[in-house]
Amino acid sequence: MTTNVGILGATGAVGQRLIQLLDPHPEFEITALTASESSAGEDYRDAAKWRIDTPIPDYVAEMEVRATDPTYVPNDVDLLFSSLPSSVGEAVEPKFAEEGYVLSSNSSNFRTDEDVPLTIPEVNADHLDLIEVQRDERGWDGAIVKNPNCSTITMVPPLAALEEAFGLERVDVSTLQAVSGAGYDGVTSMEIIDNAIPHIGGEEEKMETESQKLLGSFDGAAIEWHDVDVSASCNRIPTLDGHLENVWADTSDDVTPAGAAEALREYPSIDLYSSPDQLIRVFEEPDRPQPRLDRNYDNGMGIATGGLKETTHGINFNCLAHNTLRGAAGASILNGELLLESGYI
Amino acid sequence: MTTNVGILGATGAVGQRLIQLLDPHPEFEITALTASESSAGEDYRDAAKWRIDTPIPDYVAEMEVRATDPTYVPNDVDLLFSSLPSSVGEAVEPKFAEEGYVLSSNSSNFRTDEDVPLTIPEVNADHLDLIEVQRDERGWDGAIVKNPNCSTITMVPPLAALEEAFGLERVDVSTLQAVSGAGYDGVTSMEIIDNAIPHIGGEEEKMETESQKLLGSFDGAAIEWHDVDVSASCNRIPTLDGHLENVWADTSDDVTPAGAAEALREYPSIDLYSSPDQLIRVFEEPDRPQPRLDRNYDNGMGIATGGLKETTHGINFNCLAHNTLRGAAGASILNGELLLESGYI
Amino acid sequence: MTTNVGILGATGAVGQRLIQLLDPHPEFEITALTASESSAGEDYRDAAKWRIDTPIPDYVAEMEVRATDPTYVPNDVDLLFSSLPSSVGEAVEPKFAEEGYVLSSNSSNFRTDEDVPLTIPEVNADHLDLIEVQRDERGWDGAIVKNPNCSTITMVPPLAALEEAFGLERVDVSTLQAVSGAGYDGVTSMEIIDNAIPHIGGEEEKMETESQKLLGSFDGAAIEWHDVDVSASCNRIPTLDGHLENVWADTSDDVTPAGAAEALREYPSIDLYSSPDQLIRVFEEPDRPQPRLDRNYDNGMGIATGGLKETTHGINFNCLAHNTLRGAAGASILNGELLLESGYI
Amino acid sequence: MTTNVGILGATGAVGQRLIQLLDPHPEFEITALTASESSAGEDYRDAAKWRIDTPIPDYVAEMEVRATDPTYVPNDVDLLFSSLPSSVGEAVEPKFAEEGYVLSSNSSNFRTDEDVPLTIPEVNADHLDLIEVQRDERGWDGAIVKNPNCSTITMVPPLAALEEAFGLERVDVSTLQAVSGAGYDGVTSMEIIDNAIPHIGGEEEKMETESQKLLGSFDGAAIEWHDVDVSASCNRIPTLDGHLENVWADTSDDVTPAGAAEALREYPSIDLYSSPDQLIRVFEEPDRPQPRLDRNYDNGMGIATGGLKETTHGINFNCLAHNTLRGAAGASILNGELLLESGYI
Repeated sequence: MTTNVGILGATGAVGQRLIQLLDPHPEFEITALTASESSAGEDYRDAAKWRIDTPIPDYVAEMEVRATDPTYVPNDVDLLFSSLPSSVGEAVEPKFAEEGYVLSSNSSNFRTDEDVPLTIPEVNADHLDLIEVQRDERGWDGAIVKNPNCSTITMVPPLAALEEAFGLERVDVSTLQAVSGAGYDGVTSMEIIDNAIPHIGGEEEKMETESQKLLGSFDGAAIEWHDVDVSASCNRIPTLDGHLENVWADTSDDVTPAGAAEALREYPSIDLYSSPDQLIRVFEEPDRPQPRLDRNYDNGMGIATGGLKETTHGINFNCLAHNTLRGAAGASILNGELLLESGYI
Repeated sequence: MTTNVGILGATGAVGQRLIQLLDPHPEFEITALTASESSAGEDYRDAAKWRIDTPIPDYVAEMEVRATDPTYVPNDVDLLFSSLPSSVGEAVEPKFAEEGYVLSSNSSNFRTDEDVPLTIPEVNADHLDLIEVQRDERGWDGAIVKNPNCSTITMVPPLAALEEAFGLERVDVSTLQAVSGAGYDGVTSMEIIDNAIPHIGGEEEKMETESQKLLGSFDGAAIEWHDVDVSASCNRIPTLDGHLENVWADTSDDVTPAGAAEALREYPSIDLYSSPDQLIRVFEEPDRPQPRLDRNYDNGMGIATGGLKETTHGINFNCLAHNTLRGAAGASILNGELLLESGYI
Repeated sequence: MTTNVGILGATGAVGQRLIQLLDPHPEFEITALTASESSAGEDYRDAAKWRIDTPIPDYVAEMEVRATDPTYVPNDVDLLFSSLPSSVGEAVEPKFAEEGYVLSSNSSNFRTDEDVPLTIPEVNADHLDLIEVQRDERGWDGAIVKNPNCSTITMVPPLAALEEAFGLERVDVSTLQAVSGAGYDGVTSMEIIDNAIPHIGGEEEKMETESQKLLGSFDGAAIEWHDVDVSASCNRIPTLDGHLENVWADTSDDVTPAGAAEALREYPSIDLYSSPDQLIRVFEEPDRPQPRLDRNYDNGMGIATGGLKETTHGINFNCLAHNTLRGAAGASILNGELLLESGYI
Repeated sequence: MTTNVGILGATGAVGQRLIQLLDPHPEFEITALTASESSAGEDYRDAAKWRIDTPIPDYVAEMEVRATDPTYVPNDVDLLFSSLPSSVGEAVEPKFAEEGYVLSSNSSNFRTDEDVPLTIPEVNADHLDLIEVQRDERGWDGAIVKNPNCSTITMVPPLAALEEAFGLERVDVSTLQAVSGAGYDGVTSMEIIDNAIPHIGGEEEKMETESQKLLGSFDGAAIEWHDVDVSASCNRIPTLDGHLENVWADTSDDVTPAGAAEALREYPSIDLYSSPDQLIRVFEEPDRPQPRLDRNYDNGMGIATGGLKETTHGINFNCLAHNTLRGAAGASILNGELLLESGYI
């Protein structure tokens, strides 16, 4: 028995990755695709400019694209993955939730709302029950669950491991982000060849606030955000996929590189289909992880770390994740698996 | 009246830049070039694989390359620029100093020795008089003066400005460094296309120690190193020239972005030929400085900053400098100008 | 005495290059700028997203941008440079010519019209007098003169030299074109990093037809197109500037690499401000010309060739030119200089 | 029952690809690895700087590397894959053949020798029996079989299809080759970022001569080379993997793009493990094939073509293959499969 799923915003970069990942997924079956009104009625093959290096599954290619409106999505779709632009997501996601649909959304809207679960299943699966609060407050039969931003998701599992073992007080983080994070048309070639751009609009704020919420604790009624002091500096560089980050983590307790490595390696994963056996891999080679060599670890769902170094205040390390897999499409699917496992769908 | 200068290690990447910059220089005239023994006796045109986009000056192309040994360098050369590999520099630079030559060296050896001036003229010109201590201790007629590593030199002028205005306690710095910093053959294309490498051997230590020495104070007898706590995380990215850095500067006094910008802009330059009128430029545009657009500011000798942002502990900002101009060849030439101005040659 | 010039389409990639080149030009003075209606009334600084690595000249930055319509362009503007999108050019360039303006246009519309001069001054300056035919037929006081497409202009001077010396029968040409040829937003980073695209819409046809017209002869009444059989295969590669081309030129007479090199080197330039002393440079090094090293030869207005090799039917060689300088903005300005020299303005 | 195989030159770029492909291969089992003398005795893990994005198989990582000399290779190795530098191959491959080993070699030495089979199994499998001639003449028990150069192998299958259908008279070919073709250290980042190099030493000659031999006919005693007139112009561009080529094929008979597409699509494959079901794929989209999107077609063993266009003399088209898979390691393995199938091992 598989669950019927739909994809809101199926023609974009994350939408295409969702299709690529859902096609062979044993628990989900794609039965509905939506896009902007101008594509409604077209076959997916014509509506999407497919740019992934595996072909469009045949049945998806021939599927009719619908307008992104609850009216046009069949009732037997049990889960909707949303990769809408945030302004669109803000407008239409509540309509779907109101109509009873459960959404696992990658869109950035609502992520820091008090009654919206923002979850990385291996880190804070318990936050999912915030759905009950959400339903009470909004009177919805459906629900909206969010995964974090791709740059946040890369560092939070290691930070969670360090927080648990040593306590976490302050984080300075510098990112080297791939162009795919901005979507297919987000970064022009003239902007980025032989260059780097030390600014990604809104990204630093997302890393700072989403991390506090993810590391926070849920008492059944509300999330108490963690008070870690996060300061992010975000850069775009000429790589295709994979966000690399340099992190300074100031800890409450003393920490050595060996102790930190142990805490990272032993941080537990979760028993869901898309979750890796070992969530966090620690490289001993000082020049790893590297985006091109390490982004596909565990089907792009692993977190790679390395370069652990003691500082006066804690530990400095590097981390890497595939931004459109672990950082976007894969993150939403993993949340979908958690929703299924938890009985919400 | 120009000063006769020689270049030790003239065929490498920095050696070629030295030639490009010295050719039109009003104060210096190239009269001697050295390279490894295997090239000795050849014309420079044949000894060097010239890879700069301006042609080799004719008289340089026809100049005979000598072995890197005091025996072969004429006595009327008053200043030697050294861009030797550090292991070679360690072995031969003292021989030249002993024979009475004054060296302005870009090689990394000796930079943190107690009696070797490590200078950025706009920042710590007064450290140059450490030459007296050096001569006393080593019994040399000549002298060795060093400029810092390219990644250090990019951030130290802004740090000096902040130290002076607000006091400096801690620095976390992440670098996005260009491939030219590793020399022509230092980074292969297969290593870096669609990739980033979070490790540059020895670079982090250089940034941490050299900064403390540069920001230190000289009492006529010794340098008292500054006690700022620097932690660096260095990355190589697919850019050709220009090192971009994200800096967190924790200050003793409160600081606002506006106050920091003022301190940076007003930090004085020095009246030497290669020094820019305004040393530190502050961009208001949040996505600047960028390597390709801003590395050539003021003939590649300016320091560009931007992205100033308040943190709980001080200020976060970006800085950029051209690594083979301000960060290597231009740095050595500027030290040569300071040596001339100070009467040491 | 300088000539007042205006730029139609001043905010785009070629428009910015036109400003950069015209600012220091001794014969021309920028007095009017136009863009799309939505920018009309704004200062140029605000209307354009300036992306060139030299700053906007101050007086240009403060110049008000006008709508691209003859009504808004002052009558004392004697020459208009046009870098409009071709669909816009097709609509509005005739209106300007009708109102008496002389246009030196880089837009692709009308290039192969029978009564429109398509000129590279060093190659077919005599075609300019087609203006008389144009004025007779269209009843214009003004005129429209075109320069060829950037990929055409790179190979035609060498082809003209070979035609003159050996006769030209067939040309197969493969191009490796820089992303700037598509404008700032023309090629996304996700399309081109670690990739090449073997197709540029319309480019192959342009190379095939424009070459025949450029190499044709003008008898005072019409251009007789050259009957050379040109077949082009165009590729986009991850370079910023500079189009490199591999050319097979089948000649009527026997040709050796040495003979071809002599014909190329001796092909005459023209005595105009922007034209190089030697139009075609021939490299002996087998691995030159290269885009990054050689695109700026003679301020980006030279044609670099190399790799001359005998084939059974003629000669195989490589050529290179800077696509936004010699291939676009510089080409239009050179035509403007020719118009001035010829008394048309 | 699997065949024991060894790899000569196992630590290089092609050697690593051989390991990656042979590990899951159902017919072969890696039992010996050789490298230069300096690595002899080390574990493969230490001897090789592994740079492929799948991990080293454990048993290979722990295998001891031997010197490349028949003395050190066990007798029960039935097939040797050779990816030695050509100068080394020239010296040692005959020693192995003399000792009875059968070699499937990717090294460029001996490729055009009269008694050495140069084979692409789908194109000229019958040439393999030249082994008999080789053994007679050289008195070997073993044998040396070669696959062509990576740039040759990309265009020869389409050329063979066109030759068979329409007759082939002349070929002009321009290549856009990936950096991996030069090995890990072959192209530095400073040479190729924002650049292209119109020269690859020896490559053009290889394409011209190897193609004639591959398309030739074998009468049981010798290969009669095809008299097609091939002229190649080779370029290196900033892509990691995948050689793209623009080909002008002049044919004896008239040809249309549709007719050529049919000939390409219907050109038969061969029933060997690594050979694709359909050897040549023809894209209808004008902007395909592209290296990054299409190099992995059929596990990197397919030939992708597109952009078919009629010319006055025949057909112009693009072709693409993965240079280290179909063009090197995979080509050698396919020849190994043919040797096995043909009973030579």
